[in-house]
Amino acid sequence: MQQSIKTVVVTTSGEGLYEVSDNLVGFIEASGIRTGLATAYVRHTSCSLVIQENADPDVQIDLRGFFRRLVPEGMDWLVHTTEGPDDMPAHIKSALTQTSIGIPVSGGRPVLGTWQGLYLFEHRRQPHRREIIFHVIGE
Amino acid sequence: MQQSIKTVVVTTSGEGLYEVSDNLVGFIEASGIRTGLATAYVRHTSCSLVIQENADPDVQIDLRGFFRRLVPEGMDWLVHTTEGPDDMPAHIKSALTQTSIGIPVSGGRPVLGTWQGLYLFEHRRQPHRREIIFHVIGE
Amino acid sequence: MQQSIKTVVVTTSGEGLYEVSDNLVGFIEASGIRTGLATAYVRHTSCSLVIQENADPDVQIDLRGFFRRLVPEGMDWLVHTTEGPDDMPAHIKSALTQTSIGIPVSGGRPVLGTWQGLYLFEHRRQPHRREIIFHVIGE
Repeated sequence: MQQSIKTVVVTTSGEGLYEVSDNLVGFIEASGIRTGLATAYVRHTSCSLVIQENADPDVQIDLRGFFRRLVPEGMDWLVHTTEGPDDMPAHIKSALTQTSIGIPVSGGRPVLGTWQGLYLFEHRRQPHRREIIFHVIGE
Repeated sequence: MQQSIKTVVVTTSGEGLYEVSDNLVGFIEASGIRTGLATAYVRHTSCSLVIQENADPDVQIDLRGFFRRLVPEGMDWLVHTTEGPDDMPAHIKSALTQTSIGIPVSGGRPVLGTWQGLYLFEHRRQPHRREIIFHVIGE
Repeated sequence: MQQSIKTVVVTTSGEGLYEVSDNLVGFIEASGIRTGLATAYVRHTSCSLVIQENADPDVQIDLRGFFRRLVPEGMDWLVHTTEGPDDMPAHIKSALTQTSIGIPVSGGRPVLGTWQGLYLFEHRRQPHRREIIFHVIGE
């Protein structure tokens, strides 16, 4: 049994989904692990991780549209407003999605479904440097 | 240290929760692992996984009722509509719940609480064949 | 490769976020594992786990405020009402957040970001005794 861990940096340019499936696939390949468990973990609370469909880009448009409507900027009861109008909504969207996702590995690849992609979901408007930790354990 | 991985197929017949706790328990027993970490991962983005109460079935009714109200069909701003009116709401419900859940194993069993069950949450109306990957690592 | 597992009990006194980062850090240190994967799992469905900002306490106030507004008590269509008006909303909030979170370990510590904390999110009004299972595997 062996393991591998790596930090991947994703540079974001505003709210939206950034696919990191290829980064995960490459990380697992480099580890030489054929069967095991991979984990993606994002070290921030104003962006998050989601597994979503990577076939039709419209899915991402609607996903973003939904979260913008569910957690709009400008809710007048918010008290955490010093970091900008998009910061507290970003924290809430982060809580509603995932900070960490475990994905089994088989045949040297993550067992993503045919239409599944792993995405960093950026919730802030401004560019950010986001750290994702990849870990894999297995043999 | 050893591990085991298996694909379980769940046939769904419309929106709702389908308990797969027994499948997970059986998988872990068959692996012979007494202490470790189990992972359930669903290979789709229009259904998902949740841990919920398995004592009162009314909890499932209300859970479904809430998600139907939070993410109704017919939101007129959706652009991804070619796969049916329940498809994009299904993707959104999937993002709001889980694609993957890790459950520690102790005494040869998942450490589910007394009232906890592991469920596949089907978000589509039509019957579907859903693949869940179970993985366990430990000794 | 080795592993460790432990039950941590958190006593809650009403709805809110209770930080358990130090418990996790201490658990990993005691295990002697330097690199690996830690998992926190809560054995209940009316509280949950979230990774959130631990810098400004206002973030927690707003997070609680959002979930109270999104899933208010008194929704008149609920059928599971026998355990009190805050029970079914608690189950829903649990489904919207996490029951389990995996966190890689590096240098003998969880890879929490600078502003990240691990929290038990209590959704019930009355005091409760909550069990979290910590597991870590690595070397």
